[in-house]
Amino acid sequence: MRRSRLSPERERELCEAVVDMLQEVGYDALTMDAVAARTHSSKATLYRQWKSKPQLVATALRCTKPILLEDIDTGSLRGDLHEIVRCSEPSRERDAALMRGLAQAVHEHEDLQEALRELLVYPEIEALNALLGRAVDRGEIAPGTPALRYVGHIVCGAYVARPFIEAKEPDLEYLEDFIDAVILPALGV
Amino acid sequence: MRRSRLSPERERELCEAVVDMLQEVGYDALTMDAVAARTHSSKATLYRQWKSKPQLVATALRCTKPILLEDIDTGSLRGDLHEIVRCSEPSRERDAALMRGLAQAVHEHEDLQEALRELLVYPEIEALNALLGRAVDRGEIAPGTPALRYVGHIVCGAYVARPFIEAKEPDLEYLEDFIDAVILPALGV
Repeated sequence: MRRSRLSPERERELCEAVVDMLQEVGYDALTMDAVAARTHSSKATLYRQWKSKPQLVATALRCTKPILLEDIDTGSLRGDLHEIVRCSEPSRERDAALMRGLAQAVHEHEDLQEALRELLVYPEIEALNALLGRAVDRGEIAPGTPALRYVGHIVCGAYVARPFIEAKEPDLEYLEDFIDAVILPALGV
Repeated sequence: MRRSRLSPERERELCEAVVDMLQEVGYDALTMDAVAARTHSSKATLYRQWKSKPQLVATALRCTKPILLEDIDTGSLRGDLHEIVRCSEPSRERDAALMRGLAQAVHEHEDLQEALRELLVYPEIEALNALLGRAVDRGEIAPGTPALRYVGHIVCGAYVARPFIEAKEPDLEYLEDFIDAVILPALGV
């Protein structure tokens, strides 16, 4: 059997199909058989490319993000943080629905939790830390500012908390205000 | 039929049974019939006391909390915030499991969302705002500090974000550090 890799276009097509199926049937009902049938590929191809269902799902979520944090560098901390929420806006509702759907599955499947962390969360946290490191280098944030280790937590919380507390989705206006009212002051900016 | 109210002890007993059942079977499978059977009460009593399943569930969650924010007043903002997380510690794991279990139901049932907001979230946010108001009155926080309107969001985020980002539960040490590193600096304290 030839072990050719998929083309980037084909990989993206598969990832989009996986995310669509996740939204339609949820994680538990998503099977490699169903993905193979839907995308007209063989299960061997899927397993060769992604090894397991959790890794396929985590890769699909990452690959369909409209922008990755590592691509953001506006030259100022405030500019970077506002750019993050602006770039997330087009997929915000979809992402929120996906995360709600995955919340229980993540708790039940250790391997899914690990795959999401390794392929989705850690790379973004690393990129966020690089972005914050640049702000420290530019002298915008004092080195060793305690809130530096929690910026990812605060951003994540901003998205998650609003529906609970205000019964509203975290729209762009709210997220931009949250950055200026909470994140920058916490960092002493 | 006499419309006598339940005694506080009896109400607490019912609330604890409802929370146990929520953990065992989840919101969708929880029926007023099952609650009546489990607690040896009549459905008429349950409906007289709570009107609906969402209100029963929201009341049960509130009434089984180990402490309410309105009872916290240590005399300093830092003392109050640390007291909040210390008092929540005994029921933290149970609360997290309940919230995970309710996340999907909250999204699917508008009436549950409303009952939780009215009976559980708003009273706690109101108590938090009173607590922050006392800190403003004492001169600990400058009036009009922008982060004041987001303290509930930040606290909620601190609990929710850690499992995602660090694959750890939000234990007491983390929560106390989060208060000192994020919340107090964001409030300019």
